[in-house]
Amino acid sequence: MERELFRHRMKVRDYECDVQGVVNNANYQHYMEHARHEFLLSCGVSFSKLHAEGVDFMVSKATIEYKNPLRGDDFFDVVIDMKREGAKLVCLQNIHRCSDDKLCAKGRIEIVSVVNGMLSRGEKFDELFANFFNK
Amino acid sequence: MERELFRHRMKVRDYECDVQGVVNNANYQHYMEHARHEFLLSCGVSFSKLHAEGVDFMVSKATIEYKNPLRGDDFFDVVIDMKREGAKLVCLQNIHRCSDDKLCAKGRIEIVSVVNGMLSRGEKFDELFANFFNK
Amino acid sequence: MERELFRHRMKVRDYECDVQGVVNNANYQHYMEHARHEFLLSCGVSFSKLHAEGVDFMVSKATIEYKNPLRGDDFFDVVIDMKREGAKLVCLQNIHRCSDDKLCAKGRIEIVSVVNGMLSRGEKFDELFANFFNK
Amino acid sequence: MERELFRHRMKVRDYECDVQGVVNNANYQHYMEHARHEFLLSCGVSFSKLHAEGVDFMVSKATIEYKNPLRGDDFFDVVIDMKREGAKLVCLQNIHRCSDDKLCAKGRIEIVSVVNGMLSRGEKFDELFANFFNK
Repeated sequence: MERELFRHRMKVRDYECDVQGVVNNANYQHYMEHARHEFLLSCGVSFSKLHAEGVDFMVSKATIEYKNPLRGDDFFDVVIDMKREGAKLVCLQNIHRCSDDKLCAKGRIEIVSVVNGMLSRGEKFDELFANFFNK
Repeated sequence: MERELFRHRMKVRDYECDVQGVVNNANYQHYMEHARHEFLLSCGVSFSKLHAEGVDFMVSKATIEYKNPLRGDDFFDVVIDMKREGAKLVCLQNIHRCSDDKLCAKGRIEIVSVVNGMLSRGEKFDELFANFFNK
Repeated sequence: MERELFRHRMKVRDYECDVQGVVNNANYQHYMEHARHEFLLSCGVSFSKLHAEGVDFMVSKATIEYKNPLRGDDFFDVVIDMKREGAKLVCLQNIHRCSDDKLCAKGRIEIVSVVNGMLSRGEKFDELFANFFNK
Repeated sequence: MERELFRHRMKVRDYECDVQGVVNNANYQHYMEHARHEFLLSCGVSFSKLHAEGVDFMVSKATIEYKNPLRGDDFFDVVIDMKREGAKLVCLQNIHRCSDDKLCAKGRIEIVSVVNGMLSRGEKFDELFANFFNK
């Protein structure tokens, strides 16, 4: 990941940890989703309002590398970069533990835009995020 | 995926769906994890007992392609194949909706074995699953 | 609880357990919700279809006594009785561990029916469940 | 609730909402649990360290009244008061939406202290929270 477009700080909640004493893998997807929605909000749009207008951003593929486990009470930052690839929006999302800046998870989340139930070419991504795409 | 080593049937619970009316992406990881643990049980081992013995199977990388969304009350099967790659166990996990056998999600979950806090070469995988690896 | 109107068997999934090695408290509410929705289905109605028709059953009060903790891989039954109280539907829901029939949790869930955004007198409950109310 | 001993601000995450577009009931228990653990931390103790020392605070009864639903992106405060009752610690926890200060949920959470697997008389509560109990 080269650019940092957005950074969102969060903290592990104990119920997100499992018997192994570390955050359960699925929760990293939750963290990444929440950070993307916060990013959306910072651009003036909310996920639920988009849904009400018939626009659904849906994850078509998620790849997450787990590097170091987060534990109860850890603070962490979700850092976001993104780019367009065909009809998709690709979000690169790294999770860093705040205490030592260690990389805990590295995500590549591909998103498509479904408008009124039909897969779109991603025009909505350009409309919302044009400023952020590499030129 | 070529082989079916294990199949586990589950049903979507309404609380697993989000505002879009479909199962939230992170829950597919939960489904896949649960199916792997059921597979483990079918081999005579439980995830929590392994943990108590100092053996932790940890996901090092998860790749999930989302093909068709599951909705409230859908029945689905999680089908598992697996193979060894270096120190890793690679689980190929497909989720099929029962009503029409559509492929809903396709997962590739890489797992490492941590023994007493140290990354192992995966001897435990061979011990438990030797019968299943391609020859 | 005197009557058993419905019984639904489930199994603890490891990700539902927390650092203490037992099912996290909030998940009992999930279990009870899922069992109620299965009960609804057995009466020919689905929670999401009701929502699509403008009818939302909403929990107004939940009381849960935790008696014995469930652990990974435990099978359990959620048993349901119910009665009307004013505009409310009161669901009495006990969770029993299958291995020894121990009572693990005892719930009293009060539910109201919101129709097109307005609190109703609960006519929908009578329509759906009349056969089950004490006479 | 008369006294405010602690207040913790949180924000609804979209994945916590269900098909009805509001926060799923079980998540209020998660919010209350997290706020209690933050309160613990503010007293210098962590839930997971207590567990590692053989002390488990376990919920024996939870009563939650749902007054107004929280929705995606809502900010809310969890306010805590507490008192001793026999061997129990009783936490009174109100959840207020920040935008209009409306009471969204009202919780009464009874907690017992289990020390090395044995139910205690709650000495640990007195040790940690003595300053907060009414005299």
